[in-house]
Amino acid sequence: MGGIKLTKIKVFTNILQANDNIAQKNREIFDKNKVYTINLMSSPGSGKTSLLERTIDLIKNELRIAVIEGDLQTTNDAERIEKYGIPVVQINTEGACHLDANMVNSVLESFNFKAIDLLVIENVGNLVCPASFDLGEDDKVVMVSTPEGDDKAIKYPVMFYRAGVLLINKIDLLPYTNFDRSKIKKDALNINPGIKIWEISCRTGEGLEAWVDWLREQVEKKLAG
Amino acid sequence: MGGIKLTKIKVFTNILQANDNIAQKNREIFDKNKVYTINLMSSPGSGKTSLLERTIDLIKNELRIAVIEGDLQTTNDAERIEKYGIPVVQINTEGACHLDANMVNSVLESFNFKAIDLLVIENVGNLVCPASFDLGEDDKVVMVSTPEGDDKAIKYPVMFYRAGVLLINKIDLLPYTNFDRSKIKKDALNINPGIKIWEISCRTGEGLEAWVDWLREQVEKKLAG
Repeated sequence: MGGIKLTKIKVFTNILQANDNIAQKNREIFDKNKVYTINLMSSPGSGKTSLLERTIDLIKNELRIAVIEGDLQTTNDAERIEKYGIPVVQINTEGACHLDANMVNSVLESFNFKAIDLLVIENVGNLVCPASFDLGEDDKVVMVSTPEGDDKAIKYPVMFYRAGVLLINKIDLLPYTNFDRSKIKKDALNINPGIKIWEISCRTGEGLEAWVDWLREQVEKKLAG
Repeated sequence: MGGIKLTKIKVFTNILQANDNIAQKNREIFDKNKVYTINLMSSPGSGKTSLLERTIDLIKNELRIAVIEGDLQTTNDAERIEKYGIPVVQINTEGACHLDANMVNSVLESFNFKAIDLLVIENVGNLVCPASFDLGEDDKVVMVSTPEGDDKAIKYPVMFYRAGVLLINKIDLLPYTNFDRSKIKKDALNINPGIKIWEISCRTGEGLEAWVDWLREQVEKKLAG
């Protein structure tokens, strides 16, 4: 696997370096404006947009939220979020399998950060590539859902190594799957002993209060910091 | 999004060209030996390995099957397949989000193709990147599962444009999701009017006979061709 692999790795390093420089600029903007920012990642269809809808519902009266939606194509997700009356911008990557810092940077002028406490960046559905691209966020949040199986942490370790939070979604489907909660938690904690884990169901609402409490705390810390 | 994006696109084209040249070599090996080959792709956890287990169970007495397993890390999937007593090789991409033709080429010498009718290459779980990398296969097969949602075709169109077959898995979970079968079928057929679609459940076995019948037909065509 010599030639091609080496070429790819070299290029990837250059791209990552350029990305990290721009991510740092994004981070300065978020910090200056005291906007707590998360980078929300998962496989396609784990429930990222549903989590956003539920979270907005629970805290929109307390916190001023804004959203950046990343997708290869369509404005479906942004349209779902727009219904809640909060600022949302859709980035279409047109084939690229992840957001990068420059894509995010190019839409930041759309927001009035003086009037935003929490920015959620919903990445492209992909458990691999988005993990490597810093967007300038305060925390990476990875979501898995029970029908995907309990082997995701061990099979996609980079994502779980980099994430501060693991959300296990669709626990309402547990009775219909052979998902072992203790297995994925053990694997995730082996990879990343500091990772915080919550079990949730965006369908029934179960477990979301704990997640929202944590989110509220992070926003307050950022405002105080 | 100027500099970075252009650099990436340029590099990507070079890599794809190099990949396609090697894919052609793989294809010649498969053709010469009359081995019908599929490239099986989906999000993480849609059920690719479960499909393989079910398929092997149904046709191992008629067809000689071999498997290449692609994963970032672990030999979990290869171990699941090895139990069936068929030839299997695991490729660990160590971070790369898809198999490429060179990775596949580098393991082909492990197989005795004179004694193989059907080769299944299970790609890394990812609905984006694997679609762009020809491995030399006869057909690309994409799988989605009902808990992922019915918007996958419209949100990840490249994969559905390139695939010859769409398998809709986990239809046993339909009662617990809001998955609209007619929506994803309509979207997939809009993107790719020739795509063949089957609904299956690797858990209950529902729908698998039709899939296996089709597979048997393809193997027979390849042997006759």
